[in-house]
Parts: sequence; C-alpha cells; structure tokens
Amino acid sequence: MMIIMRTDATAREITAVVERVEGMGLRAHISTGEERTVIGAIGDGRPVYKDQFMLMSGVDRVLPISRPYKLASREFRPQNSTFPLNGVQVGGAGVVLIAGPCSVENRSQLLETAHAVREAGAHALRGGVFKPRTSPYSFQGLGEEGLELLVEARQQTGLPIVTEVMREEQIALMTRYVDVLQIGARNMQNYALLHAVGESQHPVLLKRGMSATVEELLMAAEYILSHGNRRVILCERGIRTFETSTRNTTDINAIPVLKEMTHLPVILDPSHSTGNWSYVTSVARAAVAAGADGLIVEVHVRPDEAMSDGGQSLKPERFAELVRQVGAIAEAVGRSLAKHSAPSDQSHAAH
Amino acid sequence: MMIIMRTDATAREITAVVERVEGMGLRAHISTGEERTVIGAIGDGRPVYKDQFMLMSGVDRVLPISRPYKLASREFRPQNSTFPLNGVQVGGAGVVLIAGPCSVENRSQLLETAHAVREAGAHALRGGVFKPRTSPYSFQGLGEEGLELLVEARQQTGLPIVTEVMREEQIALMTRYVDVLQIGARNMQNYALLHAVGESQHPVLLKRGMSATVEELLMAAEYILSHGNRRVILCERGIRTFETSTRNTTDINAIPVLKEMTHLPVILDPSHSTGNWSYVTSVARAAVAAGADGLIVEVHVRPDEAMSDGGQSLKPERFAELVRQVGAIAEAVGRSLAKHSAPSDQSHAAH
Amino acid sequence: MMIIMRTDATAREITAVVERVEGMGLRAHISTGEERTVIGAIGDGRPVYKDQFMLMSGVDRVLPISRPYKLASREFRPQNSTFPLNGVQVGGAGVVLIAGPCSVENRSQLLETAHAVREAGAHALRGGVFKPRTSPYSFQGLGEEGLELLVEARQQTGLPIVTEVMREEQIALMTRYVDVLQIGARNMQNYALLHAVGESQHPVLLKRGMSATVEELLMAAEYILSHGNRRVILCERGIRTFETSTRNTTDINAIPVLKEMTHLPVILDPSHSTGNWSYVTSVARAAVAAGADGLIVEVHVRPDEAMSDGGQSLKPERFAELVRQVGAIAEAVGRSLAKHSAPSDQSHAAH
Amino acid sequence: MMIIMRTDATAREITAVVERVEGMGLRAHISTGEERTVIGAIGDGRPVYKDQFMLMSGVDRVLPISRPYKLASREFRPQNSTFPLNGVQVGGAGVVLIAGPCSVENRSQLLETAHAVREAGAHALRGGVFKPRTSPYSFQGLGEEGLELLVEARQQTGLPIVTEVMREEQIALMTRYVDVLQIGARNMQNYALLHAVGESQHPVLLKRGMSATVEELLMAAEYILSHGNRRVILCERGIRTFETSTRNTTDINAIPVLKEMTHLPVILDPSHSTGNWSYVTSVARAAVAAGADGLIVEVHVRPDEAMSDGGQSLKPERFAELVRQVGAIAEAVGRSLAKHSAPSDQSHAAH
Repeated sequence: MMIIMRTDATAREITAVVERVEGMGLRAHISTGEERTVIGAIGDGRPVYKDQFMLMSGVDRVLPISRPYKLASREFRPQNSTFPLNGVQVGGAGVVLIAGPCSVENRSQLLETAHAVREAGAHALRGGVFKPRTSPYSFQGLGEEGLELLVEARQQTGLPIVTEVMREEQIALMTRYVDVLQIGARNMQNYALLHAVGESQHPVLLKRGMSATVEELLMAAEYILSHGNRRVILCERGIRTFETSTRNTTDINAIPVLKEMTHLPVILDPSHSTGNWSYVTSVARAAVAAGADGLIVEVHVRPDEAMSDGGQSLKPERFAELVRQVGAIAEAVGRSLAKHSAPSDQSHAAH
Repeated sequence: MMIIMRTDATAREITAVVERVEGMGLRAHISTGEERTVIGAIGDGRPVYKDQFMLMSGVDRVLPISRPYKLASREFRPQNSTFPLNGVQVGGAGVVLIAGPCSVENRSQLLETAHAVREAGAHALRGGVFKPRTSPYSFQGLGEEGLELLVEARQQTGLPIVTEVMREEQIALMTRYVDVLQIGARNMQNYALLHAVGESQHPVLLKRGMSATVEELLMAAEYILSHGNRRVILCERGIRTFETSTRNTTDINAIPVLKEMTHLPVILDPSHSTGNWSYVTSVARAAVAAGADGLIVEVHVRPDEAMSDGGQSLKPERFAELVRQVGAIAEAVGRSLAKHSAPSDQSHAAH
Repeated sequence: MMIIMRTDATAREITAVVERVEGMGLRAHISTGEERTVIGAIGDGRPVYKDQFMLMSGVDRVLPISRPYKLASREFRPQNSTFPLNGVQVGGAGVVLIAGPCSVENRSQLLETAHAVREAGAHALRGGVFKPRTSPYSFQGLGEEGLELLVEARQQTGLPIVTEVMREEQIALMTRYVDVLQIGARNMQNYALLHAVGESQHPVLLKRGMSATVEELLMAAEYILSHGNRRVILCERGIRTFETSTRNTTDINAIPVLKEMTHLPVILDPSHSTGNWSYVTSVARAAVAAGADGLIVEVHVRPDEAMSDGGQSLKPERFAELVRQVGAIAEAVGRSLAKHSAPSDQSHAAH
Repeated sequence: MMIIMRTDATAREITAVVERVEGMGLRAHISTGEERTVIGAIGDGRPVYKDQFMLMSGVDRVLPISRPYKLASREFRPQNSTFPLNGVQVGGAGVVLIAGPCSVENRSQLLETAHAVREAGAHALRGGVFKPRTSPYSFQGLGEEGLELLVEARQQTGLPIVTEVMREEQIALMTRYVDVLQIGARNMQNYALLHAVGESQHPVLLKRGMSATVEELLMAAEYILSHGNRRVILCERGIRTFETSTRNTTDINAIPVLKEMTHLPVILDPSHSTGNWSYVTSVARAAVAAGADGLIVEVHVRPDEAMSDGGQSLKPERFAELVRQVGAIAEAVGRSLAKHSAPSDQSHAAH
C-alpha cells in the first residue's frame, strides 16, 4: 500500500502516518519527492485498512500495491488449470461448447433441443430451472421437475448438465442432479452462495456480474477457490454500458485480460452478451479468436415460442452452423473443438 | 406493444405478424406510414412475449408501450405512500434520517455511535451484521450477536433498527429483532429474497443496484408490493459509471424521476453514493434539495478504526453538522426534519 | 511515478528499470516488500513517459503520483478564483444565474425570452448561434445574424451574453460581440480551440464532456489557464451512463469534488444534465445545495415551438419559480443569489 | 413517431395532440388500448420535433419510428459499399490492414516503421501529425513537416497515407498530401469538420466517439454522405465504460451490428480499444472473426521510446505475427487479407 501525502502535508502529518503504519506492525518506507512524500506500508500480507489512512490529515490518496486475489492469479499458478467434464477437458487446448435452452419449459422442448445440440457437437447441456426474472409476472421456472427433465436429457444424450443455482439451500439438491453449478451474473457477489459452492467441491461456472470489473470477477472466484474447490470456469457475458443497440456490451478485451491474469478456464456467453440471435455467431467466433476456452450458447427448438430469451436463442440448425464456424476459428488459432477422451457414458459413471 | 416493421417488409410478413397478434387473443392495430408499417398489439394486460415478435421475418423492432410495473406507479396510486416508523412518518412532509455504522463491530462502538446519532437528531439506527464483502479475507460481520447488540442499542436510545438481510433464511430471525429489513444493492434483483420480504409484511428499505436502471428498481419494488407488503422505501445509493474520483456516481436525477413515477418514499445514501466522507454532507444537502424523503448515512465514533467503510463514515460531530445543514435545506423546500408524533418507547411497543 | 514490479520480477529486470529511471535524470527510490519491489521515480516535474516503463520486462503496473494539472489545482491556489461579469462576481458568495434559449431562433423569441429571464433575476443571457446538431437535417443556427440579435438583447436588458464558440476562426468575431465564450461538451478536448480561447483572454465557460472524467475536465481547464487566461468557469452538464430515464446523468458528486480540487468557479446545467424540463428545478436546487457557484438554464418563451431542446426548456414563469426556490436554497447554505455591485449599463461599458 | 399518452390522459388532451399532429400537415393515427391511447404521427419524412409533443399535457412518452439516418443504412443501399485505395479494395472480401506509429516523430522513426509494416503486409500507413493530447504539456505533433515525412514514406514504400485532420482549415493542405482523412474519436460530432470532409470528396476514416452509440456513429457518417462523399470507412475504437483493466472497452458487438445496419466498410482499432500492446493481437483476431473489413494498428520501431501511445504500440515483429494470425482468421471466415489489383506506384499515380 502506498500512502500519497498532499503537497502541503506537514512534517507532523507525515510522522503521524508513519507511526500508524508502524503501529500496525508494518514497515514504513518513506520516499520524498520534489512535490510530495509517499509512504509505503510494507507488511506480511495481512489485510490492511486503506480507509483508515484515507481519513488521516495530510493524506491525498492511498494506492493498493498487492492484487486483492491470490489463488486465482497466474502469479500463484502459472500453468492453465484444467479439469475433465464427462471425458472432455475444460481449460485445455480444446474449445468446449455448452448449449441449450434458457429455461427448461417442458419435456419435448428440452429433449428435442438436447438431441439437436448433441448432434451439432455440443459438449454439455445448459438449461435453467429456477429463473431470476426481472418482472414478478414472468415465468419463474419449473424447479425440481426441471432437474428431472435435465437428468432424462443427460441419460438420452450423454451430455453433462450445467444449470444455475440461486440459493445455498438448492446446492444439496442440485449436486445430486447436475454436473456443473452455474452462478448467475446477479449472484456474482452473493458471497454466501460463493462460499457454499466453494464447499460443495462441485464444478462451478461463474458468470461475471453485469457491472463487475475483471478484478471483481477474480475476487469472486477467489471466494470459491479459498474453500478448496479448484474447478471454476469464468464466464464473460457482457457488461452494462450506455450502448443500447445490443442488450449488453460484450467485453471482448476481458478474454485476453483474464487469460493473462488467471490460470482458470475462460468462456463467453454470446447469447446474453448480445441479446440478439443475429449477432450470436459473429461474437462466438470473436470469442474463440480472442482466446476463449469455450462458449455457452442459448439454443431452442422453437425460439419464437420460448418462454424466456427467445430473441437471443439460436435454432438448432443455426447452432450447427455456429459450431462449424467456431471450429474453423479454433483451427486458425491452433486449437480445435474439444474431443472426448473416453466414451461419454463411462466417464459419466464417475458421478 | 408496437411492432415496427422494416421498410422492406412484405405484405406477407405484415400479415404473419397480424395473425400472430390475433392468435394471442389481442387486437392488431395497423398503421401504414410513408416508410414503414407499425402494428400495435392491444390487449388485456397479460404478459406478451416481445421476443417472439423480434424473431419474425420483416420485423425491425418491438417497443413496449405499457410500463412493466403497476402497483409501484403513481398512475396506480397518485398520492404518496407513507407509514409510521416508531412514531415518525416515513414518506410524509418530514425528512427522515437513518444513521449508524456500516458494520456492528462491538458493543462500545455500536452503543456510543447510537447515542451520538440519536443526540444529533437521527430517527433510526443502521448497522450491518451480515456483511457482503468483496474479498473473502475481509471482516464478514458479527451475525446474531450483532442483532442482540442492535436490540440493546434500541432499548437504550429508542431508535428503530435498520439492517440488511441477505438470505431468505435470515428473515424469520431478523423480523424478531429489527424494524426495517434492508435489501442491499447486490440483492436488488435477488427475486427469491424480494418475494420473501414481500411476504414478511415487514417494512423494507430497497437499495438500487449499482447498475440497475430506475425502471428496474421499480420492478424490484413491484415484486415486494405484489405480495401485499406496502411498506417499501426506495434508496438511491449511487450507480457505477466511468468516473473514478468517487466510489459511485450519485444519480441525483433519480430523486425527481422516482418522485414523479412512484408513490413510494425515496431516500438517498450519500455515504455509498460518494464513498468519501468529505463529500457526504454536500450530497446529503443536494438529495433533500432535490426532493428526497430521507437519508441513510454511515456514522462511526472512530472512523479511522472502522473495520469497513471507514473512509466514507462521518464522525458524530460531523453528522450533527450534517443534520443542521440538511434541516436548513428541508426548510428551504417547505419541509422539515421528521418529528416524533408520540414518545418513541410507546410507539415502539407496537412491534 | 511508482513502478510496481511483478512478484516474479528478476533482480536483472529491477536493475534495468532503475537504470532507465536514472538515465532520465530522475532519482530511483527502491522499496522492497514481502511480495514485490516498487520503484519510485522522483524527478523535477518534467513529463515522464509512463508507457515507456509499462513495456519493460518484469513491470506489472505504473502508477502516477503527481496530478496531471497544476494551475487549476487548489494546491497551486488555495483561495477561490473570482472575476466580475458585468458587475456581478462569478465564483464569489453569490450564486450566478445564466438563462436563455438553447438557440437564437428569431428576434421576438430572443428579446421576449431575454426580458423574461432578466425580470426573473438572471444575471446573464445564454443563446446559441452555431448549433452542433446530431442530425445533418436539423436546424443549424442563425450564425452572425444571431450574434447581432444577442447584442440587441444585451442593449435592451443589460444582461451579458454567453454563447458557444465552435471553431478557432469564430473567436475573433465572437469576442467583439459576446461576454463569455462557451466551450461545449463535445469540444472539451478540442485542444486547438482551448488554446485559442486561452489566448483570447476572454472569460470562458467550459462544459464537461459527456464522457470526460473530472480529472480530464481539469486538464482541459489547464490548457486554457496555461495561456494566461484565468477567467474560466467549469460547468457540469451530465455524463453518459446506462440510465435512460433521463438524457444524461447529473454527476452531483462532481460539484463537491471540483470545489475541493480546484479554485475555479463551478456551475451546473440542469437542462442538459436531465433533458426534461420537469426535473430541471429539482436538480437546480440540488446543485446549489451541493455547493455550485451558479446555474445555466434553458428558458424559452414558447418551448413547444422551440427548434431545439424544447423538451428541456423552462417557460419563463417556471424559471421565475426556479429562481425563487434556488434563492431559498442559497440562503440555507449561507449564500445568496449574486447581486450587482454597480448599475449594469455602467459596468458593461468596460467592454 | 408514436405519441404515448398517460393512462389518465383526458379526451381533451388527446384531441389537442391530434390537432397539433394534423396542424403540422401529418396524419394522426389513433390506437386506443385497454390502458392508454397511442397516437401515430405519419408524415412525409420531414423532421418533426419530438420535444414539442413531450411538453404537451397528458403525454407520457414520444417514441421515434424512423431511423434518423438514411444514406448510411442498408435499407437505402443493401449491397456493401467498396472503393479502391491504391489498388486495394476497401469494404470488399479482402481484409485491409492500416499500420504505423501514433505520431510521426522524426524521419528515421517513420521511415523504418513504414518499411517494416509494408514488409509485414500492411496496405496503408497511419501516422499523426497534429496530435490531440490530454495534457497541454505533452508532445503536440510535427505539423506540416510531418506531412512531408509521410509523403516521403509513401514514395519509398508505395503505401497510401492515413492521417488525422483536426480542423476544417487543415483539409486543403491535407488533401494535397494524404490519401485518407481520419476523423478522430473526439471529433466524431464536430459537425463543421464532418461537413468539410464531406465536401472534400476525399476518402474518410471516421472513428466512433468514445461515448457515442452505434446510431450516433451512423448519424455522423450521414453528415459526410449527405455532401456526396461516399468513401467513408467506419472505425470502432473502444468505448468508455466502468472497466479499468483496459484503456477502453472494445465493443465487439458493434462489428456485426454495423455490418447489419450499414453498407459502409467497418474496421477496428485494437490499439486504442485495448490500450495495451499485449492484448492487441487477440482483439485484432476477434475483430476479423466478428466480420470486420480491416484493422488500424499502432506500430513503432522502438515503442519504449515513443512520444505517445508507446504502451499500446506493437514492435514490427509482433505486427508481422499479427498479420499472420489475422490472415488465418480471415481464411477461417471465408475471406483473406486484401490483395493489390495493380502495382501500387501506378495506382497511386491517380492521386
């Protein structure tokens, strides 16, 4: 932490800061410039309260030096973290594709969609059963009945299941049914939930909050990692900006930034990050070109009858085209679509 | 809902849209302009799925006409909603002041602060016991022990208690102890929690999410109102923008906008909306000048020892000065600080 | 400037940075922490190229320590800068009100409006003659004919004139006619124009760009000040955010932030910062409550016939009410509306 | 234009709106819903002043139906606009690469860089001679001397020149020297400049403002097109958001959005949109994957000595690697890097 004094700070104010630094058991390192004095507080990594110095007389600003996360950083672990999901390596050279409807609506919708995305080349099936909806008058999801339909879809297709968990209480139920617990954008800073999925030791897909910085996303991941759960996938899904021609603004910069800062797998959700099916394939290609390790895409057999997010869902044939195009991009960057290392039913037996 | 066709839409595409509108049991109203056809879908207020039309061939855009909230709107209820809180009218002519520490840290910190804000003129005491913290390595709150300290502070000062609830499971416990349940900015769209506080019938202080629009705040309030709980206070607490000289950007426009759109009481939190104690009093004055019905302010007896948010907390003497200045502003806009209609211990007996 | 090394930086990388710092004629101050080394570059205030260090091997980040502006800062000049405008002190205890139409449209519109705002208590008349319009098909302003109408309005009312200059070439013409040159939000970083108005030595009203930070506003002011022109008024006029219920988001925080950082007068434009006449008076009150030194408000005798910005313009009677209310707020914060120190026609003779 | 009445609008208020619509020579189309009346104003495409209706009693909102630009839209011109630049087709199947230093600093820096980018495969040379700098104390560019150096670089390499014009007065000079006039982000809404480059009939590279919407970018293009200049290239260069890990946020969505809305060529500037050389290549790949028609990239022979933007400039060998990678992406999306249709010196003779 660097404490930058005002240009008119007095010797007494500087001394008071130094004494407080030392009173905390830290070393104070004083640097006297032409204009200002800067005091470095050098310590043992314990949390130090920046705010306490901001309040002291003569202090202009306080700048943190350490990054606020450790386990998630590449400085802590230089090589990529990978883990198998039903025989597919997540975070490795292969690009992983997760696809399925926004919401599980009914048996035929889910099963038809599951078979279609499987055939097109998806590696996992997504589908929400507890839906966070902006309006209290909208469809709220099927709940446990939806989970049972997801399990049936997995049995028929062999695809592992990714679904969103919204409350700690759902985790015990969810982990019996699903392969990956998704933390939605609105819960990225729901720390009790992060704590609980951390303890569950179940794979987690953590979505970036729509106004969260990349650093805050990494701090949210740190919550999960700090409970010993290392299987965390980060997901960029668009941020909120002034631009209104799309639902969100895809922060494509976040892909190379995250790949530089962290060893965790990074994927992109072009459905939410654009909010319009006609832009999904272009942005999916961009994500893989930028270095993403995978995609999560909304697909619906009949988008114009969808109970949620129909406007941003791809029809199966368009998803199949996306897979072809993304595969070509993956080759162009020296990767490929992920391949199964083993028959899916066998590897799934591990669950 | 208005469905705006592309300039090159064919007669067949227009007919298909009209048929779908009518197939939903709505009336279609066709308006043929020089350049485009616009189709109005006129109905009975049932949710209609905008996305379903966005996917149809020849459609350019779909614009909603109805506002997505009703119970929260002034069109539904023209006069201000008010309710008593320990003998003080919330949402009435009097400006209500809620003050106290960010976190309940220990007995002496809380009681000293409670007495100080009471003496300065506060009408209610705030203090967090379950803290959502960005870092897993930060202080996480005292939990139920903190609730007991809050109750002791209420007994000594007569001030009703406002504290944040973070999970549905905490509600039963909380309602035994506290007078107002606060929904934090990060939970503004935690619909299960909104549902549960709606059902609790306990007064709620609903904070705007840091990237939520005014309309989304009103939709969150609608969730609570739709469960029959009419005692909802809306709280502007700053939004996230590109500006970094303050922690958040106080959206002062939101005060008159909300007062025009809704009958619910509207307050402002200048501590979070600025993030710096030296700007709190100025922005508090601005809020009341703009028409806010109250303020919620972080106060700490020793901000430089605070375990959270010290940099934005006022010392008691500065809070007392804020109360004096805000009182003068209230008079200037034809209001005053709220007054007790009855001895506080009596009215509190109602709990 | 502080150069923060990566945790895995080698001794050789650290030495290379130190040598480059010294090679620039600066002192290097090395601070070795538990995790990282931080190198302070201490110099004589010459511009140092941060980017050059960002590119060096082993460097994590580079943090500036000095503020990038000097003449505009309160550290440079602690007391408020004030200057007289037609017998009214700008930046002093009195709150200054500038009012008038968005565009000068014709003689009767301007003269009627000018008389009305004068009568209501305005201290200066605004009116645009060269209009920057988003659409090439919109009204573009009257040009020099408009300047002549402004002069006639000044002769009749005694009000000094504030109008926007859009190009360096207009300055010579403008300074013959007008009292204050306005730099519009879109030109806040038009450095050639800032340079030219700096050299003109004419009073300048500098509007914040809609995506400019407070620091960038101060750097724009520095351009003007660095040419010896000290009569600069800063104007907050709303920033662009994700919120769409108003045209812009009034950054009310910017008022106390600017008053702390700079000695220059700070005013607010509630017409542009809200974009809706029905919110203008509330936000005008808020601005003065927060510490603004004045307001610039759009007023039109017949807003529903205005050729631009009618929706955010006040009718004269509403402006008169605004003046009354703002006057009450000014008193509440220990100020008042500005008063003329001398008959306006006399002081104007100075031009 | 659709005028949406309040739910409590009276018959008299509705009539007044209808009469005003008709008084403007438009047809009023009344649609009476369960809750509200909506009045369509159907006309002949003349500008209609939305603000005038917003002010009328009983009006809730006014929604525009027509898009505010025509010449730039794909509805006006469905096929892509293309034009040759020194024998290379801009806007065609080939991806066009523009590269060079941020600023022209001196002869050796420019010529070495020009040869290096030419060798790596660039189709045009960029380089600023009039620099808009945030600080008045920074390097401001070489001016006309820089133009002469650019011409020398063109003579040696055959690369056409792209450089920024900042003022109308520079256009006559510029068009004698340069092949493409760049309008910088800060000038995207400098309408006088747009008008002047429109009249120049010289090719224009129009950068999106850092807080401009896609629609505003298209309206800026409309200014240029409306003067008969059809050779306009649009350039996404990052927008300002709350995210601070990169200088700007690359709005990758804007690529497919613009390709859908307009027939004009669309390129991306990954140097400014990231602000960090280490992310430039990833984002360049993403742009071409998303459908961009080209890139403009900052390259410097010695970035660590650059007088501006060194931190985001690529060394020539890294740019050569970018060209290889982008070429592979172009092939993956069924395109290729642009090829010369004729010897560059011959085609240049056309100037």
